[in-house]
Amino acid sequence: MTYDNVPKRPVALLGLGDMGTALARTWLAAGYPLTVWNRTPAKAAALACEGAVVAASPADAVAAADLVVLCLLDDASVGQTLEGVDVSGKDLVDLTTGTPGEGRERAAWAAARGARFTDGGIMGTPVMMGVPASGAYVFYSGSRALFDAHRAALEVPAGARFVGEDPGHAALYDVALLSAMYGMFAGISHAFALIEAEDIAPKDLAPLLSEWLGAMGFFVDNVAERLTSRDFTTGVVSNLAMQVAAAPTLLRTAAEQGVGTELLAPYLDLMRRRLDADRQARSGEDTTGAITLLTRQVVSSSPVRDQR
Amino acid sequence: MTYDNVPKRPVALLGLGDMGTALARTWLAAGYPLTVWNRTPAKAAALACEGAVVAASPADAVAAADLVVLCLLDDASVGQTLEGVDVSGKDLVDLTTGTPGEGRERAAWAAARGARFTDGGIMGTPVMMGVPASGAYVFYSGSRALFDAHRAALEVPAGARFVGEDPGHAALYDVALLSAMYGMFAGISHAFALIEAEDIAPKDLAPLLSEWLGAMGFFVDNVAERLTSRDFTTGVVSNLAMQVAAAPTLLRTAAEQGVGTELLAPYLDLMRRRLDADRQARSGEDTTGAITLLTRQVVSSSPVRDQR
Repeated sequence: MTYDNVPKRPVALLGLGDMGTALARTWLAAGYPLTVWNRTPAKAAALACEGAVVAASPADAVAAADLVVLCLLDDASVGQTLEGVDVSGKDLVDLTTGTPGEGRERAAWAAARGARFTDGGIMGTPVMMGVPASGAYVFYSGSRALFDAHRAALEVPAGARFVGEDPGHAALYDVALLSAMYGMFAGISHAFALIEAEDIAPKDLAPLLSEWLGAMGFFVDNVAERLTSRDFTTGVVSNLAMQVAAAPTLLRTAAEQGVGTELLAPYLDLMRRRLDADRQARSGEDTTGAITLLTRQVVSSSPVRDQR
Repeated sequence: MTYDNVPKRPVALLGLGDMGTALARTWLAAGYPLTVWNRTPAKAAALACEGAVVAASPADAVAAADLVVLCLLDDASVGQTLEGVDVSGKDLVDLTTGTPGEGRERAAWAAARGARFTDGGIMGTPVMMGVPASGAYVFYSGSRALFDAHRAALEVPAGARFVGEDPGHAALYDVALLSAMYGMFAGISHAFALIEAEDIAPKDLAPLLSEWLGAMGFFVDNVAERLTSRDFTTGVVSNLAMQVAAAPTLLRTAAEQGVGTELLAPYLDLMRRRLDADRQARSGEDTTGAITLLTRQVVSSSPVRDQR
């Protein structure tokens, strides 16, 4: 399905940082009438040469299109920028980086002002925008009607994946994936640090590491399965007791190699705590059950969360 | 290449824990004459029914074969078990879990007693032994001549990968891969913890997470490339300044969702410290340079490492 024959309705874009500027260029290149606004006007001026209409104020920008895309510094900037601006009847798509809670509050804020609202979490970087081969995409959540109405425009900079009506979920999926990525990066970093002082070329370790991590990627589906069934013991290939017993060798190796254990120790400790809490029942689990410690500990240590 | 026509020379195996027992069964099934010894005799007796010869002492076991495989509790157990045993002229393959340093010391110990020595690090669990489809394999390092002479027997329980003459490297590769895996597991665990309280099925997150981690797996080759060139800035897709700026959103999201940040914060902190040390030079790096902090911090805080 292509959208070549869909009439290209105007887009307004507020915020021309690296990401906003990259988004703007994709809409201009695709022939969308684009009105831009930025707090410091210089960046907007550059885009004017490329065909963008530069709005003198946020209100002018918002008035120029039904679809208003926000790509500002943070959620507070969204509130400040749209302070006193009439957004009733508008379709607000908020690509500003934020938390799920901010997405929900901003959705309520928009609803109170008569606007439809969809939050977005961009899985990609500015240089990936408008490059389908980059694999970049955006999680959207909130108003499905808004998303469907503007899907053609939203798919210009990157792929678009709608993940539900809860306006917090786009940010939540975004953060979940990025957080998992940093865990993987941490593990990879520790592995390469271990060989730093050795006569081993990083490029000799790399293919073995890639192959191994690919094979261990089954853990994702394994976790999903066990968190659904709450069965942490059936079909376990490597049991928790064995893994906890092997952990000291990993820590001692790091010490021998002169590598800090800050990236490695927390997960090993989580496994140990899961086992120690009920050694008999949990020896035969895999490591999935350790996840429950991540959530329970926080809830139990701050029972009155809303007072933070 | 198969080894069906290679004469099956005797194997001696010391240590019949879960892994030793699994190894023993694969050699028996493949028709190797096998002599076993275990500190507590009951486990050996079970294997006798399956065709193993049970040695009355470690010395008797060692005398029964040129190839002597050790799969004991830890390296100290190896020393205790072989105390006073004549190993001259023997080929010792040590599959006991240990550190690179222990592998090197044990190799020197063996050399002083006239034995050839190859250390092994098993990438798999007992149930994977003898199951080619499991993908399990063993890293070997130390005596190449030993490895070549016994390759057929060594490839019976699992694949065999020789990673160099340094007897510490088998354990090092083993630990590096396992450490990286735990990092990935930690990231995946944090991601699922984030959605625990939400109306999101773990199985809805799983395919997105798998796809994302697969795409981000490029990081392994990227790190190898940059650690070789020591160039952390060319061709950067997502720069360090941008990633450090986005980190608080990840931490705040964890707080909102009631999830502990112990698995996430250390790597984000490492990125921040890398950037802060020279913001101007490092803003345009990717996150690879953070690895250097893992090694340098330890070396600098314990300048006299050999005195530990």
